[in-house]
Amino acid sequence: MSGIAADDITPWLPPEDLARVRRQVPMLYLDLLPVRMDDSGTVTQVGLLLRMSHGTLSRALVSGRVLYHETIRQAMLRHLEKDLGPLCLPKLPPSPQPFTIGEYFPTPGSGGAYDPRQHAVSLAYLVKVDGDCQPQQDALDFTWFTPAAAQAPEVLAQLVDGHATVLRRGLAHAGVEA
Amino acid sequence: MSGIAADDITPWLPPEDLARVRRQVPMLYLDLLPVRMDDSGTVTQVGLLLRMSHGTLSRALVSGRVLYHETIRQAMLRHLEKDLGPLCLPKLPPSPQPFTIGEYFPTPGSGGAYDPRQHAVSLAYLVKVDGDCQPQQDALDFTWFTPAAAQAPEVLAQLVDGHATVLRRGLAHAGVEA
Amino acid sequence: MSGIAADDITPWLPPEDLARVRRQVPMLYLDLLPVRMDDSGTVTQVGLLLRMSHGTLSRALVSGRVLYHETIRQAMLRHLEKDLGPLCLPKLPPSPQPFTIGEYFPTPGSGGAYDPRQHAVSLAYLVKVDGDCQPQQDALDFTWFTPAAAQAPEVLAQLVDGHATVLRRGLAHAGVEA
Amino acid sequence: MSGIAADDITPWLPPEDLARVRRQVPMLYLDLLPVRMDDSGTVTQVGLLLRMSHGTLSRALVSGRVLYHETIRQAMLRHLEKDLGPLCLPKLPPSPQPFTIGEYFPTPGSGGAYDPRQHAVSLAYLVKVDGDCQPQQDALDFTWFTPAAAQAPEVLAQLVDGHATVLRRGLAHAGVEA
Repeated sequence: MSGIAADDITPWLPPEDLARVRRQVPMLYLDLLPVRMDDSGTVTQVGLLLRMSHGTLSRALVSGRVLYHETIRQAMLRHLEKDLGPLCLPKLPPSPQPFTIGEYFPTPGSGGAYDPRQHAVSLAYLVKVDGDCQPQQDALDFTWFTPAAAQAPEVLAQLVDGHATVLRRGLAHAGVEA
Repeated sequence: MSGIAADDITPWLPPEDLARVRRQVPMLYLDLLPVRMDDSGTVTQVGLLLRMSHGTLSRALVSGRVLYHETIRQAMLRHLEKDLGPLCLPKLPPSPQPFTIGEYFPTPGSGGAYDPRQHAVSLAYLVKVDGDCQPQQDALDFTWFTPAAAQAPEVLAQLVDGHATVLRRGLAHAGVEA
Repeated sequence: MSGIAADDITPWLPPEDLARVRRQVPMLYLDLLPVRMDDSGTVTQVGLLLRMSHGTLSRALVSGRVLYHETIRQAMLRHLEKDLGPLCLPKLPPSPQPFTIGEYFPTPGSGGAYDPRQHAVSLAYLVKVDGDCQPQQDALDFTWFTPAAAQAPEVLAQLVDGHATVLRRGLAHAGVEA
Repeated sequence: MSGIAADDITPWLPPEDLARVRRQVPMLYLDLLPVRMDDSGTVTQVGLLLRMSHGTLSRALVSGRVLYHETIRQAMLRHLEKDLGPLCLPKLPPSPQPFTIGEYFPTPGSGGAYDPRQHAVSLAYLVKVDGDCQPQQDALDFTWFTPAAAQAPEVLAQLVDGHATVLRRGLAHAGVEA
């Protein structure tokens, strides 16, 4: 999952409070697959972020927390614009039903993915993105992959823990599994 | 469900053949809810067709057969453009997963809706329609309703048998049930 | 949503901590519809809890928090057994995909249901319950309703804020909307 | 997809009629994944049929036509009992929403799987099967696989065209993709 974004830290939740809350309750996240589609509605590309962390390159979905008193749809828009820029023009899905739920635990081997920072549960959605996408903040790059290329072993291996699973479920849901 | 559209009758399936097939196997249909959405992805309007049949006004979803050797996505586009005109600009959904399945039987009380013409099974989808919609062929009108207005008893009562059920399931799926 | 259950208060999250966290991040909840089904898989009954709170009777789904380091499936089992007793024998669904997401805000008119205690987001599932269900703890009763009876205006009006919406979406998902 | 089962041929649809209808309209099919689950609702095994056809061994999902005037649920039960025997004790899912749609065309390269017999569209469901499963009729064997074993390349390669796709989407939907 992505690091703590600046706008995730609100006046009433300073870093030390967030750090404590992350060890007290599961954190609600979104895992978003930005997709390009052709006129027939077929997903032709999925976008992944590239980041450098502790000297290692890793790829990730658009991902982040839902804030206190924020709706799911507001959080979707905020994270897409935060990670892809204000011109990405996302088309949010009409239904709140996610295609899957991601589970992330601070202890490896707990039945989900590993996230050393926290226990997190994500709602996962496909989001059509029509506009111009530019990597923001700490991202080095944002790359569109065909469904087959995104599921190549070397790409899956670069993904942050748990995101390969969500990515494959999303592409299977879209009917474009490799 | 809608009547036999002209382009549903292909050279290799003349009306008498279609009539016979309709008593031999279930016919595969699509039930489509054209929707308008705001920038947050919330469904704000759903469109219904108005037709005159045997002297009675009735409303209907965009609905019709999947033809031999036609993909689901091709059939979606064909029916939307056939019923709403070539400028309706539908945005097909990224996933083949329908929100529900409709069942229509030629015998009342068979556990589904009543369709005197046939046994039909429909795949139901929400489809965002951004363009200009004009009723085509036998339709008198095409009207956008808010979710609440579409679920008013007088509108539900005007719907072709079975379409009220699919409409309500679709609006519940979108999270905008009245 | 249900009150704070005894086993929701773990040593590392005393009541004052929970109260504070509830004003800092959205709380992850489950909203579960216990259902009875016939041999054909059709939902024939849905179960609702009856509680007395501040002198008022109210009905509710089986609902509660996901705890820190608890999987969704563990939380499902815990809440069903906590509310319906150890002999309720739930059959958990095979997919983590919920049929909808519930949103609850501490400020009325925020675009979801009202929960004065917190901002909560729920994952909603149908769960087949085959065994003997007995109301536990603070519940006065647990009653099975046919889908039609559960959607009678007087029952919907008794439901805790937001649960009528989730109930109707769940019954629509099951294809047994009234 | 499975061959023409004896009980698929009803008095009003003799083989020559079925053969003709199969070239006139898409045939409605079910693709069913029989699954075993543990107490937590996690899918632990998926069952596949083994058949000999034209001297070649192939594996398949439980699959077959929906008959005229048959409900989806009746067809589910009929095919499960036809392929797995009367003691298989299937637990049908509570919702008519399939996890995906399969598309099969009589011409290779038409955008779906290849089925030389027909154009078919399948509704795909996971079905929990608790009882004793015995291969019936033309099946040589029925084998339970762990999700990982079922997705081994040699098993996927043995599957009837299109079934590997549906299998992988079903396991991804269940959250047990390899």
